[in-house]
Amino acid sequence: MDRYALIVAGGAGRRMGSAIPKQFLELAGKPVLMRTAERFYSFDPSIRIIIVLPRDQFTYWNELIILHSFSLSHSLAEGGPSRFESVRNGLALVEDDSLVAIHDGVRPLVSTTTIENCFEAAATYGNAIPSVNPADSVRLMTGAGNMPLNRQFLRLIQTPQVFNSSLIKRAYATEFNPEFTDDAMVLEKTGEEIRLVEGNRENIKITNPEDLIIAETLFSSVS
Amino acid sequence: MDRYALIVAGGAGRRMGSAIPKQFLELAGKPVLMRTAERFYSFDPSIRIIIVLPRDQFTYWNELIILHSFSLSHSLAEGGPSRFESVRNGLALVEDDSLVAIHDGVRPLVSTTTIENCFEAAATYGNAIPSVNPADSVRLMTGAGNMPLNRQFLRLIQTPQVFNSSLIKRAYATEFNPEFTDDAMVLEKTGEEIRLVEGNRENIKITNPEDLIIAETLFSSVS
Repeated sequence: MDRYALIVAGGAGRRMGSAIPKQFLELAGKPVLMRTAERFYSFDPSIRIIIVLPRDQFTYWNELIILHSFSLSHSLAEGGPSRFESVRNGLALVEDDSLVAIHDGVRPLVSTTTIENCFEAAATYGNAIPSVNPADSVRLMTGAGNMPLNRQFLRLIQTPQVFNSSLIKRAYATEFNPEFTDDAMVLEKTGEEIRLVEGNRENIKITNPEDLIIAETLFSSVS
Repeated sequence: MDRYALIVAGGAGRRMGSAIPKQFLELAGKPVLMRTAERFYSFDPSIRIIIVLPRDQFTYWNELIILHSFSLSHSLAEGGPSRFESVRNGLALVEDDSLVAIHDGVRPLVSTTTIENCFEAAATYGNAIPSVNPADSVRLMTGAGNMPLNRQFLRLIQTPQVFNSSLIKRAYATEFNPEFTDDAMVLEKTGEEIRLVEGNRENIKITNPEDLIIAETLFSSVS
């Protein structure tokens, strides 16, 4: 089956307290988004890479490509007002009966092992979602107060979330629901069971300045 | 009310793949355990510090004190075979009707703001547990498969967990229960309600070599 990487980068950078959207900040000398795309290329040089960006960042992205001599072949899709719409726009470029990895543009530390785990399981089960155990105790807020949850039964969810493209495209034909916080939840609404696989702990989402410093530190140790 | 910091350092270092227990590894040039104790001293120079260590590490600790000219006054208590017993041994040195912060020796990045939040709330409510929202989506493993949890209602739990000493000493007079994963759960068994307060995201537990590298990176940014 053909493999796609659909990399979603919609950030406008406000949370980073920076004028530059976080996907364009530099990690080890290159924009985060390029580092992220390179992970998928390292896993499989024949993977088809689609990058979803807000329309008003296309020109800047093309300037960065020249500046960094970035040569990975990829398509661009236009981001929508929400992540849901951005993913839907990207999926329009994905053929049926293929496997598509939907990945956060600001998770450049995904390991090729995690990517491989996900593609392998998704080929068998139709979907695969990388996850890790929480390192801390976890509590649930209830109306009255709070209670402990057994963390053995909890998983923190990452990306890439890999799907049979026909299944996820059908799921994304549904209407947007504010409950959707990731692609697994969109698929789940169609009645499919979600398949969890092992992610890698370094695979953090860069959302604030400390994350970028941490990512810089971890960058050389992830392969 | 008098304030105590009960710092529990029971690690034998196997998970770090190191001969040196993780509490003795160096962070910015000093053993992690000293960095941790210094946080509480920065918050309140009159706080009484109790360090719980395995008996067979007492000599090494005293050598480190000389080597690093570590001058913070503190008492030593003997660690037990489990964390539960280590905490109980430490609590024997704490006076009733005081406030005691029970803290992981390998969390040197707790901010003085977090420590202050906890002592303030515990003075009013009898306990205070620092926590942060998960940054990722969370799923619960069920017998049949798994389901999403609303992360708005979830909290990742940290230390220091601060208690009215009379309440927590009474709670620790109970028998050990393997369900206890932290001190809040021991108190909760007596019928007390647990009070969650805001922690700080950098307040990670050093459990593997990557954590130490991350801690080194974050060390200068936490105050």
